[in-house]
Amino acid sequence: MKIIFIGDIVGKPGRKILKNKLPSLIEKYSPDLIIANGENAAGGKGLNQRVADELFESGIDILTMGNHVWDKKEIFNFIQGDKRIVRPANYPKGTPGSGFTKVEVNGKIILILNLSGIVYMPPLDCPFKVIDEMLNVDDYDYSLLDFHGEATSEKIAMGWYLNGKIDAVVGTHTHVQTSDYRRLDKGTLYITDVGMTGPYNGVLGVKKEDVIKKFVTKMPTRFNIETDGPKQLNAVYLDLNSEKIYPIKEIE
Amino acid sequence: MKIIFIGDIVGKPGRKILKNKLPSLIEKYSPDLIIANGENAAGGKGLNQRVADELFESGIDILTMGNHVWDKKEIFNFIQGDKRIVRPANYPKGTPGSGFTKVEVNGKIILILNLSGIVYMPPLDCPFKVIDEMLNVDDYDYSLLDFHGEATSEKIAMGWYLNGKIDAVVGTHTHVQTSDYRRLDKGTLYITDVGMTGPYNGVLGVKKEDVIKKFVTKMPTRFNIETDGPKQLNAVYLDLNSEKIYPIKEIE
Amino acid sequence: MKIIFIGDIVGKPGRKILKNKLPSLIEKYSPDLIIANGENAAGGKGLNQRVADELFESGIDILTMGNHVWDKKEIFNFIQGDKRIVRPANYPKGTPGSGFTKVEVNGKIILILNLSGIVYMPPLDCPFKVIDEMLNVDDYDYSLLDFHGEATSEKIAMGWYLNGKIDAVVGTHTHVQTSDYRRLDKGTLYITDVGMTGPYNGVLGVKKEDVIKKFVTKMPTRFNIETDGPKQLNAVYLDLNSEKIYPIKEIE
Amino acid sequence: MKIIFIGDIVGKPGRKILKNKLPSLIEKYSPDLIIANGENAAGGKGLNQRVADELFESGIDILTMGNHVWDKKEIFNFIQGDKRIVRPANYPKGTPGSGFTKVEVNGKIILILNLSGIVYMPPLDCPFKVIDEMLNVDDYDYSLLDFHGEATSEKIAMGWYLNGKIDAVVGTHTHVQTSDYRRLDKGTLYITDVGMTGPYNGVLGVKKEDVIKKFVTKMPTRFNIETDGPKQLNAVYLDLNSEKIYPIKEIE
Ligand SMILES: [Fe+2]
Ligand SMILES: [Fe+2]
Ligand SMILES: [Fe+2]
Ligand SMILES: [Fe+2]
Ligand SMILES: [Fe+2]
Ligand SMILES: [Fe+2]
Ligand SMILES: [Fe+2]
Ligand SMILES: [Fe+2]
Repeated sequence: MKIIFIGDIVGKPGRKILKNKLPSLIEKYSPDLIIANGENAAGGKGLNQRVADELFESGIDILTMGNHVWDKKEIFNFIQGDKRIVRPANYPKGTPGSGFTKVEVNGKIILILNLSGIVYMPPLDCPFKVIDEMLNVDDYDYSLLDFHGEATSEKIAMGWYLNGKIDAVVGTHTHVQTSDYRRLDKGTLYITDVGMTGPYNGVLGVKKEDVIKKFVTKMPTRFNIETDGPKQLNAVYLDLNSEKIYPIKEIE
Repeated sequence: MKIIFIGDIVGKPGRKILKNKLPSLIEKYSPDLIIANGENAAGGKGLNQRVADELFESGIDILTMGNHVWDKKEIFNFIQGDKRIVRPANYPKGTPGSGFTKVEVNGKIILILNLSGIVYMPPLDCPFKVIDEMLNVDDYDYSLLDFHGEATSEKIAMGWYLNGKIDAVVGTHTHVQTSDYRRLDKGTLYITDVGMTGPYNGVLGVKKEDVIKKFVTKMPTRFNIETDGPKQLNAVYLDLNSEKIYPIKEIE
Repeated sequence: MKIIFIGDIVGKPGRKILKNKLPSLIEKYSPDLIIANGENAAGGKGLNQRVADELFESGIDILTMGNHVWDKKEIFNFIQGDKRIVRPANYPKGTPGSGFTKVEVNGKIILILNLSGIVYMPPLDCPFKVIDEMLNVDDYDYSLLDFHGEATSEKIAMGWYLNGKIDAVVGTHTHVQTSDYRRLDKGTLYITDVGMTGPYNGVLGVKKEDVIKKFVTKMPTRFNIETDGPKQLNAVYLDLNSEKIYPIKEIE
Repeated sequence: MKIIFIGDIVGKPGRKILKNKLPSLIEKYSPDLIIANGENAAGGKGLNQRVADELFESGIDILTMGNHVWDKKEIFNFIQGDKRIVRPANYPKGTPGSGFTKVEVNGKIILILNLSGIVYMPPLDCPFKVIDEMLNVDDYDYSLLDFHGEATSEKIAMGWYLNGKIDAVVGTHTHVQTSDYRRLDKGTLYITDVGMTGPYNGVLGVKKEDVIKKFVTKMPTRFNIETDGPKQLNAVYLDLNSEKIYPIKEIE
């Protein structure tokens, strides 16, 4: 089972480089499944129907989300019915959408899960408790968790916690790819953060001038997506059968 | 001016791999200067005289620090007098030690600065304000900042803020190396986090069982350094003249 | 059913004023039950056997706790077996001790609950979710929650959330008594914070010099209990039958 | 010098009870000066010209602010020129508006200061450092600080820090009045929080249903001002000459 997992797609620049680079990545890796984090896909904040459609047409099979999942109100119109979209599972019972999905590829079922960290992030149910319950089923062949979190300690601890119990834990949210991709000793593939897909010369996708202004002046500042300059695509390639993980980093 | 900057050295495992690997790194890169972050060098928390001596004897020229700088009370005995140790500059006036140091190498003066982030970290003076004042002198030939911070946004913004005004900004504190090392367009070398130097199979240097227990049970938990298993050394090599930066990652 | 609820007892000064003032309070109010928050009773941090015994002998019937519950390791020796001690209920399943207790007074059963807030506090299970499950039983006549939290919004929201479903919600943790004691319109008695019982001239019970030093210098500072000067006892008197709540404030 | 200081005025309900109650308060206390915190005066978020005019016409002499100061963009049009409006002084140099003002009343000059806390709040300059510089002048007869902060420890520490150096420290921001008003031993009048002026049955001024929904569902929730039901006015009366402070609490 070969998977490409793409880090947070940020706005139009993110979608553009995705469209330009995905064909050659597909050719190179022949993935069975392509997953992307889509929490910033619509203008940097959330997801709407048009952008979701565009991403699925670009070749994405599954979109995971994160703390920005509800930023576009439109998502309430379609998250419930669309099995290709997964939001953090540690929202309370009754929250629209689902914290996991299952896809069948070549007769195999892949369980895809999404969780949010709770360190330096808004309070949600404990991700360590929630994942225990979610993995306590046996009707799948492969499993992958997008753990969307800020603190490196929480993400690495989750990797070790699930070591041997899940095929892969990939971190998202910081928008910066880490170089610690590896196979943990019981076979779980792990990376602390996959990074982001969008502008290369901004700050997490936002115009650097806006973010610097915010830090320097402490004033409320509108964050605009950086639309000029080069773009980057950050991803990982995971081969769940041979237990291999490789980083992908494209710039254009 | 060629520099090796080594990420947070954690306890005895960190000092051990440092001693084992530094000779070959020196041979390979012929650095003019070796800097390391030493905030976790003594038992994972702070720095004492014995460990500082050991690190300087191992070949380290300068030790930068971070939020753990005061963890060992012994540091108050020697931080004031030792120009090889630099603590975050954004502590209040009157704080023991210095937020910068100058070293002369081959007739050139290198200004080495240390700042702590203030996002998801204890409050200190604004690092953007403090760095302005510190760079507003002209008696140095090269300059490098260890920006010790949690949030990727704060560190990347600092990189762009100092783009063209400083030779290098290297991030520390998250203990995970990022893969975004680069030359910013006005010549500043940048990486969000250099990573750590210590156990390879822990959580930021701590035994994984301890950290998992903390996250699962929410109970106060003693964090012990992981002393078994392989070790890692994370660093970057910076050539300030040719404006090149390369990651270094050693495992043993 | 008449109850005196006493705010966080801090160290020896807190226990001393308690012993001095409780007899006259008992005489004045003739309470059926005396509850106190004991999370700071032993040296300002946690609870040990000796101090617990001393408080029960002073006349306290039930001790509720808070974020400092585990500060003294000794508590693991007796919290499990002692039905007079209640710790926040939103710790994970399997945590030693209990999040509620029942006492019979004059043939009536009083359910006493303890919860910790999660805003500006370490992550625990959602208190709004946990309280729903805990009140979903019917074998008690009266009920009172000590909601130990920092944020006024979280505490007031809890008061309204339980309005008419519980007899009383009393807040603790900030160590400062609020003046908003009232009967909510469906009969629940409410106060945002009962305050503390201990030194009158410190900062939350700690020597003011220590806390000021911490804020001014940002250095690690040992917090000593203020042992000199006047003491204060902060409490509320609740009459659950007539739905009345009055503040109690004693200084000596 | 007799002052009435009114806690955060929240939206239209706050302005309404202010107008209704201020005449009788003026009659009762004959204040020389009336100060109010206005950070929530316009629809619960910030201040605009119309609302500022309305408040000054109601009898307010000076408006202090807090973390919501910039919520209405319109404030940039008038904060610079209006000496009756004071925003937290610990914003960076160059921030529009002023962190203090001086008013002359009966031939005496009163220095009015505003600071924001930095514990559980966005980072700003250290309030303890900033206040030192601001009080280091001698051209005033009386002085009062509105310390707008969340943490009780930070506010009480500031009270003791300025004990004998300032006439009054009144806290704001939590929207709940504390009962700890007092004269510190060197003459400074102090209260941890003055409370708020607005709806009586909401959560800090917001409809309780909105805030409860937020805490229960963790979903983004629009916070509407509670416009129904009774209203409250929270204030303190300070007599700087006789060093007396009394709470004021009106409900209608
Ligand atoms: Fe993101
Ligand atoms: Fe995110
Ligand atoms: Fe570190
Ligand atoms: Fe650190
Ligand atoms: Fe307490
Ligand atoms: Fe507490
Ligand atoms: Fe306010
Ligand atoms: Fe505020």
